[in-house]
This record gives sequence, structure tokens and C-alpha cells, in this order.
Amino acid sequence: MSKPANTALQERGVELRALDLKGSQETIVSALKDIGTVISAIGPMEQLEQIPLATAAKTAGVEKFLPCGAMPVVPVGIHVMRDLKEQVYNHVKRLRLPYTIVDVGWWYQLSFPELPSGKIDYAIAFKGHRIPGDGNMPTALTNLRDIGPYIARIIQDDRTLNRMVLVYNEMWTWNQIYDTLEKLSGEKLPRERDSLADLEERLAYAEEKLKKDPNDMLPAFVKIATQYVISWDIRGDNTPENAKYLGYLTSKELYPGMGFIKFRDYLQEVLDGKAKPVNPEMKDVREALFKAQRTEY
Amino acid sequence: MSKPANTALQERGVELRALDLKGSQETIVSALKDIGTVISAIGPMEQLEQIPLATAAKTAGVEKFLPCGAMPVVPVGIHVMRDLKEQVYNHVKRLRLPYTIVDVGWWYQLSFPELPSGKIDYAIAFKGHRIPGDGNMPTALTNLRDIGPYIARIIQDDRTLNRMVLVYNEMWTWNQIYDTLEKLSGEKLPRERDSLADLEERLAYAEEKLKKDPNDMLPAFVKIATQYVISWDIRGDNTPENAKYLGYLTSKELYPGMGFIKFRDYLQEVLDGKAKPVNPEMKDVREALFKAQRTEY
Repeated sequence: MSKPANTALQERGVELRALDLKGSQETIVSALKDIGTVISAIGPMEQLEQIPLATAAKTAGVEKFLPCGAMPVVPVGIHVMRDLKEQVYNHVKRLRLPYTIVDVGWWYQLSFPELPSGKIDYAIAFKGHRIPGDGNMPTALTNLRDIGPYIARIIQDDRTLNRMVLVYNEMWTWNQIYDTLEKLSGEKLPRERDSLADLEERLAYAEEKLKKDPNDMLPAFVKIATQYVISWDIRGDNTPENAKYLGYLTSKELYPGMGFIKFRDYLQEVLDGKAKPVNPEMKDVREALFKAQRTEY
Repeated sequence: MSKPANTALQERGVELRALDLKGSQETIVSALKDIGTVISAIGPMEQLEQIPLATAAKTAGVEKFLPCGAMPVVPVGIHVMRDLKEQVYNHVKRLRLPYTIVDVGWWYQLSFPELPSGKIDYAIAFKGHRIPGDGNMPTALTNLRDIGPYIARIIQDDRTLNRMVLVYNEMWTWNQIYDTLEKLSGEKLPRERDSLADLEERLAYAEEKLKKDPNDMLPAFVKIATQYVISWDIRGDNTPENAKYLGYLTSKELYPGMGFIKFRDYLQEVLDGKAKPVNPEMKDVREALFKAQRTEY
């Protein structure tokens, strides 16, 4: 509660309530008292702790529950994180708790390779990026900083009640990203490629490590990263067409006039040295994204 | 292929194609050649054989696939059959195969108790019915014979593409059914009741039997029957409100003018000796529905 980020919120008049999701239902219900909308921003490894949270939200009379979506579009049975979230979504549905699931595509901030000059290393999520498949699969990208304003509109929008919503800014392929970064920087980028077989080998290696130690975070993150890549770059799951097929509304249909930062402009910011690197607390994820480009570690 | 029912279809000009769902993908694909809509009417114990069927349908270019729904409205994680079907639905969604899932509530034909006089025994699905819970939970009922005409409209209706649809005729509670049957027959019906605890005890007994022999069909059917009752009579899952919450369209919204046989009229038919009993091939199911009213067998 006394972290600087929390104090800053309190200074802006935001009421903070601490709660322990492993505590009793009574204490969680009481922390949710008189709250209309609950937005869960829980960590990747704590997804199932949303189950007691949702139960308490139902008891407390919460009007809209946003379980932690925040993923690209992935069908069930493709990605370990999506399947964990499905357990939460199904619990919410058994409760008949009013909900909105918001997925966000993939972040601009994690979607570009380093330059040979090292000029943009300050902003790079991980080095040694390899292009999966032929590099021509379009995927939905969103600026991390645009997600907040989308959520603010979604939670006030009756059309999103008991629906899934895909928030995204633009569609890009890896080849387009490499081409654009070459054009803007004037540097020539090496293009290393991974086949589906490479990715499957990497996934099998991570699974093998996890079998030996299910609590080993590195192969767990490598599995997450590699399953993502198979989903969006090989299967092409992360598109508005597939989202609509799966029953999502999209931010483009809901808010056609909504402004956002273009990915090309974001890349220019990166080149100009003005981009803000992703949260340093994501070090583990970034390390895993790097390792996920290699077969052994 | 040479069963009388098949011959009757062929005489009406229907082309029949036999296929083995345990056979090669090539043979299934070839049986589906040039077919626009596939309606799966597979048996309860063969649900997962729809997985190779859906894969072949995708390859064959099928435009609309109706996996076997035909259930009341039940969320995931409540009923063993619904969860089996979910595996099929998720496979369909991973394939991006255009689909419509049609659920049908529960049948008129299985929704009334016998009379003390024995007068309607000819039409009764099973004897010794007990009312679960307080008997006041409304549930969506459909005449078995009305389902065909609904399906015929649904498969030609673009609004149902990649959606779930609940087909139903009327909402009834067990108390209303008993009251109506008393009024129409002039007989007084005994009302035996089961609490949730009774049902859970029965479910545990079936689970125990299944643990000893997973292929024992009787406890398998008892489990199915008891989970249904918990879902619709205790949880109240089988309603259009819950269906809409879960993302379904309903036949009432889609086809407001569509005619159907009223349940009261159907009960009168039963009393008049004019009702057609449900398929005698359902003997196993009816025996289980009876056993599911008792704790031990």
C-alpha cells in the first residue's frame, strides 16, 4: 500500500483497498463493497486466483467484472495462458456474473528487432529476434499506452456487456516491420528465420524442462512465448477476422473515430530516442523471449 | 444403409453416403464432397468422433457445420456431456470452420410424470419421477417433433453463422406441470421431492460405480441424468435469459411468428392416448432416468 505508485494514486484521490485473494471470501467480499466495475490486472502466474475474486464479486453485487484477458486472439487449446484464462471465464459464466473480456493483440513495445548499430537497444525488449514462418502473417498490434483509454470507453459501453472485445490499433507482418525499420533507420537488418519445426523443437525442449521442474520459470515463459508465436505467426489467430469468428466485438467497430498512435510513428519515436522501454519488472519475460529464439539454454 | 429408415429416405430422393468416422481422413473428406451443410446427429457416447469429422469438413470446404448440440443450456464445468461437446466446439474453432451450435432445451416427451391410474404409462419415459428442489425453477421445453422445422430455418439463416442458438417452445416449472396434469386428468398426483443433497449423493454413487468400471453404461447415464437435473432444476441454467448471457441467439428472437405445439396441448394428446412414445432405442436412457430417481442400484 505504501509503494510510491500507490501513494501517487492516493494523492490523485484514488481510494486504495488491499485484499488477499488467498484469504477468506468474507474479506474479499468486504473489499469489493459498493464497487461497480472490477478490472482484474493480475499477474500471469496468478490467473486462477481470479476464481475466488469472481465468486466474491458475485456476492458483493459487482455490476461488471473484467477478468484478466489482455492477450492476443487465441482459440482454446493452443496456448497455456489462454487455457488458464478459460478456466476463469467458465467460472464467471457458471456464476452468471456480468463480464467483459478485453484482449489487446500484441504490444508495439515488443514488436521490433534491434538495429545492427545498437542505436535502439535502450528500447528493445529482447535481442536476437528471429522471424517465424515466412514473415507474411498479419497480426493485430496495439500501443501499450493506448490500452487504458480503450478500457475506459469499454467499461462504460453497454454493448460490451457479456462480450469479448478485441482492442487493436493496426495490422502488421514481420516483413513489413523489418522493411519499415530499414527504411526509417537507413540500416540493413539481418533476417533470421524459424520454421514451424524449429518452434516445435523449442517448445518440446521447454516442456521437457518443465516436466523435470514445473516451477522453473524460464521454460514456463519460453513455452508461453513460443506458443504465442505459433498462434499468431504460423496459425494467424491474432486477426480481427478470427476475433469476429470467435464472437468478439472489435475496437474498430465499436469506436471507429478513436485516435491512436500509429506503429510507424511509434517506430520513429524509438529511433528518435524518445520511446519508453517496457516495464523493467518484465525482465523475466524479456529474458524468456530471448531464450525462446534459441533451442537450448 | 439397407435399414428400412434408410430405404425410406432413398425413396424420397435423398442420397445416402456411408462413412466410417474411425477411418482415414481421405475417406471422410470424400464422403463430404460437395456438401454445403453438415448436421451432426451423432450418439451421446460418440461425441469425440466429431473431431475427425470436423477436420474433414474443413478440408472438404463445408460451408456450415452443425456439431451435435441438442442439449439444454448448460455452462462448461457442470455437465459431463456439455464438457465433451466443448472439446468438439473448441476443435471446430481452432479450424475456423463455419459453424452453428443448436441447443434445444429439454423434450416435452421426457417432462411429465405417470398418473396413478396408469392411463398414460404407454407414453411415459420412466416411472417414479421425483421433483428436484422446490419445483419452482422454470426450464425451456421443446417438442421433439418441432426441432426439425427449427433446424431447417436455422441452417438457411445467415444470422446464425458462428453462433449458438437455443431453440425452445415454452418455459415450465415442475409444479406447473404437475398442476396442469392434475387439472387435465382429474387425478391427484403424489409429489415426492429431492433436495440438492439427495442429488449429490446419487451423483457420488454413480461416480463411485464409474471409478470401478468406466464402461458401465448405467451409472454413466445416471450421472448424465443427475447432472442435468442439478443444472436446470437447482441452478436454473436452462432459460433464455441464461442462454443470452452465454451468447446464444434464441428461436423466439429469430422466428417470433414460428408455430409450435403448446405443452398443454401435448399433455392433452398424451391423455387422449394419441402421443407417440419416444424412440424405443432410448431404453437405456429411460432406465437410467428411472434409476437416477433412486440412490442405489
